[in-house]
Amino acid sequence: MLKIKKIVELRKILESYRLNKNIIGLVPTMGAFHAGHLSLINRARRDCDQVVVSLFVNPAQFSPGEDYNKYPREFESDIQKAKAAGVDLLFAPNEDELYPRKLLTHIEVADITDCLCGKTRPGHFQGVALVVAKLFNIIQPDKAYFGEKDWQQLKVVERMVYDLNFPVEIVPLPVVRDKDGLALSSRNQYLNQVEKRQALVISEALKMAADKIKSGQRYAVKITGLVEEMIAKTDGVELEYFSIRQPENLTEVKVIKRKVLLAIAVRLGKIRLIDNILVEVSDNVSDYAKEQNPSGNNYRG
Amino acid sequence: MLKIKKIVELRKILESYRLNKNIIGLVPTMGAFHAGHLSLINRARRDCDQVVVSLFVNPAQFSPGEDYNKYPREFESDIQKAKAAGVDLLFAPNEDELYPRKLLTHIEVADITDCLCGKTRPGHFQGVALVVAKLFNIIQPDKAYFGEKDWQQLKVVERMVYDLNFPVEIVPLPVVRDKDGLALSSRNQYLNQVEKRQALVISEALKMAADKIKSGQRYAVKITGLVEEMIAKTDGVELEYFSIRQPENLTEVKVIKRKVLLAIAVRLGKIRLIDNILVEVSDNVSDYAKEQNPSGNNYRG
Repeated sequence: MLKIKKIVELRKILESYRLNKNIIGLVPTMGAFHAGHLSLINRARRDCDQVVVSLFVNPAQFSPGEDYNKYPREFESDIQKAKAAGVDLLFAPNEDELYPRKLLTHIEVADITDCLCGKTRPGHFQGVALVVAKLFNIIQPDKAYFGEKDWQQLKVVERMVYDLNFPVEIVPLPVVRDKDGLALSSRNQYLNQVEKRQALVISEALKMAADKIKSGQRYAVKITGLVEEMIAKTDGVELEYFSIRQPENLTEVKVIKRKVLLAIAVRLGKIRLIDNILVEVSDNVSDYAKEQNPSGNNYRG
Repeated sequence: MLKIKKIVELRKILESYRLNKNIIGLVPTMGAFHAGHLSLINRARRDCDQVVVSLFVNPAQFSPGEDYNKYPREFESDIQKAKAAGVDLLFAPNEDELYPRKLLTHIEVADITDCLCGKTRPGHFQGVALVVAKLFNIIQPDKAYFGEKDWQQLKVVERMVYDLNFPVEIVPLPVVRDKDGLALSSRNQYLNQVEKRQALVISEALKMAADKIKSGQRYAVKITGLVEEMIAKTDGVELEYFSIRQPENLTEVKVIKRKVLLAIAVRLGKIRLIDNILVEVSDNVSDYAKEQNPSGNNYRG
């Protein structure tokens, strides 16, 4: 595995890959690799001739007061994990390499960044879009791999790629969870044993909400109420948001008629965790109609 | 010369160029070719294996009420001119091809777009940055050619390329003028004979200002005053701005100590024209010192 810090050096190597008609896969990361990252790397390994992993804790996507400074940095063990997973090239630039001076260029993906995490993390998705655009231009991958755990981020990246015609295929992969259901996150390291137990309510709440939908509940406000209640009963966990959204454009859903995204963000003290789940709704029109009108009469008197 | 309207088709052809290790040059245009465009194409022809010219009147860079609808469209004669100039590929997409739906992604280059044309054309440089980013991602040129006539646009593009690490070299080329000094512009077609004569004051004012600097004037406010006076005396011509700027970051210059940009925008009725000139200042420190202190004494009492 090659370890590269400089853009100029990286470009030379990638140029030779391209001239050999190699398919190049990129897994952009902030390091502290867990099984979620490894699932992205493994898939890239299967799809591509050359797997590039970028490892860069991107200051532009942290708001002031967020955990940029204490975000886990585990460079040595990340190198070992990447090597073991068959990564060809690890691009781990210093901050100066990507931000040599104050950038004047900003990329904003409107509308879909106004809600969910965009609301409490101003500038976060601008920072994500910026670093992803830079990495795409530096690495020029054929495919890039993103976890669905950060669903809104995935949608922002997909939309930017579509709008700006980046010549890259975005490959999303499902959330990876531990045996208790907790979605893997580099930030889980911040949790002590008590918090780790408390944090299980996140995926349990999503599961409860999904079950309600599956058993016929179509009113978002009812489901949201149940989730709020469940979180409120859990010591140490504060709900930032729970929201039912159209999965692609992230508009709020009031009455569930088709596939929806259930998205949640909570805080355990200073630790902020997010999770989400997609719920397919089959036979939805008739379910909804039944609920509106149990008699089967299409007109209400 | 190939004429292509579809991105998918274009990409296939460009991919074959790249695999042949061809150097690809892009000249992005809005058509209505004049000698300014041809100087860009000729230079690309000399530098590159494959010359791609894009021809697209970009609605995103026109503000409401501007001349998008009446902007000259001369597709047939442009094709002949491009062919004669040795262009390999003319990319002339329909609006739907570049803007298939409302884009959510915006690119802003801050600070350097706040002044000069950015002030009177809100959103203009966002529209430029957007379409240039799209064209770069679609065409992936090695080099792209821009005229210095649109100096601020050139700086916006250069800064975006730098900030976002676009793998493209920007090649700027000097303003091309007609025999009377008028900077070539597709918008010159709007001018009738009288206006054409009136418009000569633009380059004459720049030349006068440059002469004043060359003969020792270092105070921007004095030069600006002379230009304002000169334009005010010219029937039919209204000054939008004349400004003396640092050429790279476009900050305003009050006392001229080194190379400066003189930039001007005027209106003749509804027709808006811009021009600029760079003025080198040699021996500037001593000139400035002399002006401050003609006695040659470095300390003022």
